[in-house]
Amino acid sequence: MDKILVVKIGGNLINNSQILNRFLKSFAKIETKKILIHGGGNQVTKLSKKLNLNVKITNGRRITSIQDLEVATMIYAGSLNKTLVTKLQSFNCNSIGLSGADANLIESVKRPVKEIDYGLVGDIKKINSIFLKNLIDQNLIPVICSITHDKNGQLLNTNADTISSEIAISLTEYYTVDLIYCHEKNGVLSNPNNDNSTFDKLNEKEFNNYLELKIISNGMIPKLTNSFYALNNGVKSVKIAGQSLDEQNMKSTKITN
Amino acid sequence: MDKILVVKIGGNLINNSQILNRFLKSFAKIETKKILIHGGGNQVTKLSKKLNLNVKITNGRRITSIQDLEVATMIYAGSLNKTLVTKLQSFNCNSIGLSGADANLIESVKRPVKEIDYGLVGDIKKINSIFLKNLIDQNLIPVICSITHDKNGQLLNTNADTISSEIAISLTEYYTVDLIYCHEKNGVLSNPNNDNSTFDKLNEKEFNNYLELKIISNGMIPKLTNSFYALNNGVKSVKIAGQSLDEQNMKSTKITN
Repeated sequence: MDKILVVKIGGNLINNSQILNRFLKSFAKIETKKILIHGGGNQVTKLSKKLNLNVKITNGRRITSIQDLEVATMIYAGSLNKTLVTKLQSFNCNSIGLSGADANLIESVKRPVKEIDYGLVGDIKKINSIFLKNLIDQNLIPVICSITHDKNGQLLNTNADTISSEIAISLTEYYTVDLIYCHEKNGVLSNPNNDNSTFDKLNEKEFNNYLELKIISNGMIPKLTNSFYALNNGVKSVKIAGQSLDEQNMKSTKITN
Repeated sequence: MDKILVVKIGGNLINNSQILNRFLKSFAKIETKKILIHGGGNQVTKLSKKLNLNVKITNGRRITSIQDLEVATMIYAGSLNKTLVTKLQSFNCNSIGLSGADANLIESVKRPVKEIDYGLVGDIKKINSIFLKNLIDQNLIPVICSITHDKNGQLLNTNADTISSEIAISLTEYYTVDLIYCHEKNGVLSNPNNDNSTFDKLNEKEFNNYLELKIISNGMIPKLTNSFYALNNGVKSVKIAGQSLDEQNMKSTKITN
């Protein structure tokens, strides 16, 4: 089977245009088949503030009102997605931007209300992986944002870390899949204030221990939970990495089960 | 050759969600191959006002600053494009939203500065029609917004009427192409205040006469100029129509050369 690399970017890696440019150059150079999935950095929060919308976050999850969803769609699927695509095109990387509504790529269902009503947030139901394969076979590089839809006309906000693991798993039918979560830090750190404290490797047992000891910070939990989920469902390797994909400069933590 | 219908929507047809829904239902029902191209209605102007940006228009053309381009990209490629796509998906029309940057669909060049500096406005250079054909052959319905790019990392604002004629012309290599410009009025009117004054047909000579007599209003000029351009370059038929594509309810002016 052919190899494919699924790369997720988010956070400060997106906020700083110099760092982002350098990263995209390193992504463009990768010679295997590849997919880019992105979060939104702080751009949604910034625009929401300009429009005087209140941003509500509970347990690290954004509560998504109709207005919030509109702003998220404008940034994720609009300005940010198209900026990434045109930059990659300028590096001769023939990319195509997609939301989950496009070609019914990611069908989701509005999260059921239990203790918390998350608003217009979608939990993934189905990935149209054959459509992705068709694009990839045409040498196109999908650039996927974190907006999905319910197939009944409603767009929904969906966590980009979760989209990355689900897309990676769905592609194991056709490819040997490697998944990398990239962000501004050098992988998983034992001390968040020391960028040289990268764990070389981390397994699920160690993760649970470090979590109990509060050595691993809250922000890393969704990435790590999704990493183990991907490994347990056919993805060949998962790394949590820093700001570059250049083999020489790449700092990362290998996640193992 | 297979037939394909290229449909452009804009103006008040987009601003009113009830009218838009009805229109999209009639579009979804069409059984031939098809493409939808959209302008932005008044949503860009509305958001620009909320963000306190000045909208500058000269000779009916928007002067596009960096901030204007960002707002246009957020609306055209983001919220509006994805709303159209998810609505069409709910009518079982397997659509895919695209800007000109995606898969290098529409390469443009920043308009040279002569008397007027239009800002970040792109004149079309090249259409990737083979990519469109590949999508159409997979039974996907492209939904194309009016953002293009220069292949050097710069997004550009481009007139949706022009995109429609250029896309229609580029597809004549593979298909027999019919082009319809849809808007809120019943085709080309001899009296803009009387929605029953639709011209049945209009040729270039008549157009020039009516223009001199000021019977045809300014807003129609780009649509009509693009219509004649398309007809003179291989497009089989062009119509300027109203709010519906249902054969029973469709009101339109047939443009002839």
